[in-house]
Amino acid sequence: MSFIENLKNCWQQNNSLVCVGLDPDLLRLPSHFEKTADSIFEFNKDIIDATHDLVCAYKPQIAYFSAISAERQLEKTIDYIKSNYPQIPIILDAKRGDIGSTAEMYATEAFSRYNADAVTINPYMGYDSAEPFLRYKDRGVILLCRTSNSGAGDIQDLIVNGIPIYEHVAKLISEKWNANNNCLLVVGATWPNQMTRIRSIVGDMPFLVPGVGAQGGDVEELVKAGQTKNGTGLIINSSRAILYASSGADFAAAARAETIALRDTIDRFRNIS
Amino acid sequence: MSFIENLKNCWQQNNSLVCVGLDPDLLRLPSHFEKTADSIFEFNKDIIDATHDLVCAYKPQIAYFSAISAERQLEKTIDYIKSNYPQIPIILDAKRGDIGSTAEMYATEAFSRYNADAVTINPYMGYDSAEPFLRYKDRGVILLCRTSNSGAGDIQDLIVNGIPIYEHVAKLISEKWNANNNCLLVVGATWPNQMTRIRSIVGDMPFLVPGVGAQGGDVEELVKAGQTKNGTGLIINSSRAILYASSGADFAAAARAETIALRDTIDRFRNIS
Repeated sequence: MSFIENLKNCWQQNNSLVCVGLDPDLLRLPSHFEKTADSIFEFNKDIIDATHDLVCAYKPQIAYFSAISAERQLEKTIDYIKSNYPQIPIILDAKRGDIGSTAEMYATEAFSRYNADAVTINPYMGYDSAEPFLRYKDRGVILLCRTSNSGAGDIQDLIVNGIPIYEHVAKLISEKWNANNNCLLVVGATWPNQMTRIRSIVGDMPFLVPGVGAQGGDVEELVKAGQTKNGTGLIINSSRAILYASSGADFAAAARAETIALRDTIDRFRNIS
Repeated sequence: MSFIENLKNCWQQNNSLVCVGLDPDLLRLPSHFEKTADSIFEFNKDIIDATHDLVCAYKPQIAYFSAISAERQLEKTIDYIKSNYPQIPIILDAKRGDIGSTAEMYATEAFSRYNADAVTINPYMGYDSAEPFLRYKDRGVILLCRTSNSGAGDIQDLIVNGIPIYEHVAKLISEKWNANNNCLLVVGATWPNQMTRIRSIVGDMPFLVPGVGAQGGDVEELVKAGQTKNGTGLIINSSRAILYASSGADFAAAARAETIALRDTIDRFRNIS
């Protein structure tokens, strides 16, 4: 089954647009965890067990693992999800981007070594930097379009022929890069007007949406701007607000409660009949 | 000493603009190497020993290591250069790009875990994605500007207010991001006209130049387009043409000969009095 079909099933089965971002920071783990790399897997496992029926995807962020030589913990985290909750798609957040044989190596890293179902990549280098990922027809390729950060506009908002670059990127991907129907876009929750424009360009292409929770994106505005007619189309990520909802022994229950709260807030504004 | 000072010293000391890119592909190692991750370090070590007096930098490409779980081989390769040839700057080619705490983790990966002297990053997400790297004042931050690949123009050549995006990026970096004087740009060897324009915008800011060798960039055109008045300003990378100059037991001698040939070709067009 393709990544996008898998995602659609998970949206329906768990009836949720929430994605839990796995950004395990040793300095922020609950105090009863030892500050060693092994703790990262144990922490992730507890978060996953506490939220698996509430999410449409998990999104491990690779830098939190690679910065501390914890690649093995990332492998174990993905294996754990695949073994115990195989219906939940896994997005490796890596924002890779390079060309030719190097891009092939990055695709091998994401799709073979880590066995992720989808990966985030950066479109700045052009089509031939994306193609080695796109040729994996059953995997998702999630391209940065309009990111959630305050500096996003430095380059993404420059105006070309009357429209901003992020709209050109959305058009390029929708019209030329999506031949295998496996493209998605990153569109930040913090920019609902831009999200409305992008939705009008790309039809039902799914969006990965960072920027709620710690970054402050407004859920009502983003859901109204980005959802498709059937009330899906969005993978709304929250990382720190869920992972670190409590620093005590109750962190998993607190993460569950936070995930439910986000799901329910989202659902208030979804087109659900 | 800062990365750029270190680079200037190495340009002068070895009197070379050549950078050897370390892209060790198990499938292409000389036949007497076993096809295991350990061979990667042994291969790199032999290449480094054979070329250390001919280069201004080494550039390991991280995907060639991470795709096959060979992070340890990357650590050992960098340690080997630092221990034996400490005057040679090491560029980690990783093309990272993310925001806030995640960008901090990527900077930790490059500058603390691997102890690289410089790292390549992607500017698409804007200033706040670069800042966690830029704050390492003694390290180099090498931003993609005009890349060497055929699809580079898909986004980089879009015209904003009469000038292409890559020129906007060059201006932004030169005027706003370079407060610590630790920025460099990636400018592909395959686009000498674009390189001439970028050189006119950024003064003496050094360029990392991929695209000679296997990618076919013309050395005369690129050197004339990109060099500074004193005949430096360029880190001209060659990877596969040097690493795989021979597939036999003489690979290290062949790599040395190929490096000398590239250095000498470059020198024919340098402003050297």
